Amino acid sequence: MRYELYYWPDIQGRGEFVRLALEEAGADYVDVVRGRGGVAKLQRLMRRGDHPAFAPPFLKAGRMMVAQTAAILLYLGEREGLAPRAAAQRLWVHQLQLTIADMVAEVHDTHHPIASSLYYEDQRREAARRSRHFVAERVPKFLGYFENILRRPYLAGRSVSYADLSLFQMMAGLDYAFPRSAKRWRRKFVRCAALAERVADRPRIAAYLASDRRIPFNTMGIFRHYPELDGN
Amino acid sequence: MRYELYYWPDIQGRGEFVRLALEEAGADYVDVVRGRGGVAKLQRLMRRGDHPAFAPPFLKAGRMMVAQTAAILLYLGEREGLAPRAAAQRLWVHQLQLTIADMVAEVHDTHHPIASSLYYEDQRREAARRSRHFVAERVPKFLGYFENILRRPYLAGRSVSYADLSLFQMMAGLDYAFPRSAKRWRRKFVRCAALAERVADRPRIAAYLASDRRIPFNTMGIFRHYPELDGN
Repeated sequence: MRYELYYWPDIQGRGEFVRLALEEAGADYVDVVRGRGGVAKLQRLMRRGDHPAFAPPFLKAGRMMVAQTAAILLYLGEREGLAPRAAAQRLWVHQLQLTIADMVAEVHDTHHPIASSLYYEDQRREAARRSRHFVAERVPKFLGYFENILRRPYLAGRSVSYADLSLFQMMAGLDYAFPRSAKRWRRKFVRCAALAERVADRPRIAAYLASDRRIPFNTMGIFRHYPELDGN
Repeated sequence: MRYELYYWPDIQGRGEFVRLALEEAGADYVDVVRGRGGVAKLQRLMRRGDHPAFAPPFLKAGRMMVAQTAAILLYLGEREGLAPRAAAQRLWVHQLQLTIADMVAEVHDTHHPIASSLYYEDQRREAARRSRHFVAERVPKFLGYFENILRRPYLAGRSVSYADLSLFQMMAGLDYAFPRSAKRWRRKFVRCAALAERVADRPRIAAYLASDRRIPFNTMGIFRHYPELDGN
């Protein structure tokens, strides 16, 4: 069975956390919206059926459709061997994913602290103010938490999980969006930095990152590089 | 086995979504932090053990400890009969819970759009701006979604789930925080309003709401009543 991933075609966004899991699993999948007529298909499907999605990404697996990044990963993790078998450990990985999801939402709000429906240019002053707190307080709090729980080699022990892939994506995104601050964070949160490298070196992830399936970071996604938001 | 819930003692906050589930289940639980010395115990436990919490609430169940509201509910839902038995339906309820969690985070940011570490008074102007968008665009988008999927009597069909309890809490919180706008929303999103009443009338929930275990809404929690944020 071929998975169908539905997400906006020109950004990594939240879809990237799902793409990384599908790639690491070596799953058979198609990134539907990157093909012709894809956006129309996404919009048509999104509100249909028994389980409509509030927002992309969503995943179709046969007749099943699931949305919400963390719920998609909960599903894929179990099916594709990207989560521990024991229920308590599987819940722990999910808990970590939800904390990463909270951090992702805060990253988004650094450039959109007022409304997603406004341009960045219409909320620049508020973005600068929010970003100062994000860079100085929030990133150290989040990364400090992950640093503290990281046991080598992976978050939940010996095997890679979808939460490791997501933490890699977070570190990569911070590197792109906040390059000046990220240098400091990599020095301070060495286990997080090492985990990100370990994930990037996994053969399937390395192949994916070198392929044109990996959409480059850009200033339309969640991680955006606006130098004025990158602290001092 | 008695569950131990750990959350801040003076607010409903995110802990309330867990309290509602424990109450509806008739579970044996103790709200640890509302007792003497509770905050110190919370802070001591939070960062300990194999599965530390990034933030409250967290739940102890014997030797197990789980944090992140949606993960706690995933766990309780299965154990306490507040989620469907079939895996696909259980995932659907979780997906809905994650959408409610996104909405809860947006409610919080109406009064704290810049930083949680600042007082409301230090971000009033930004709060007014963000709230205008929240009231005019975001609430209708979220409630419109739930209105569309609501099948009587409950979100996932005939049996109540933790997502129903959470949607009740959302409607109650909106009533408190945005009373003027909420009147309009209840008229427009009649199924959401009816669901909230149906949940409030469930015997265990009704008994809980009438008890002193239910902390009143106040301007320290997630739902805060600041008349200047309540639209026109």
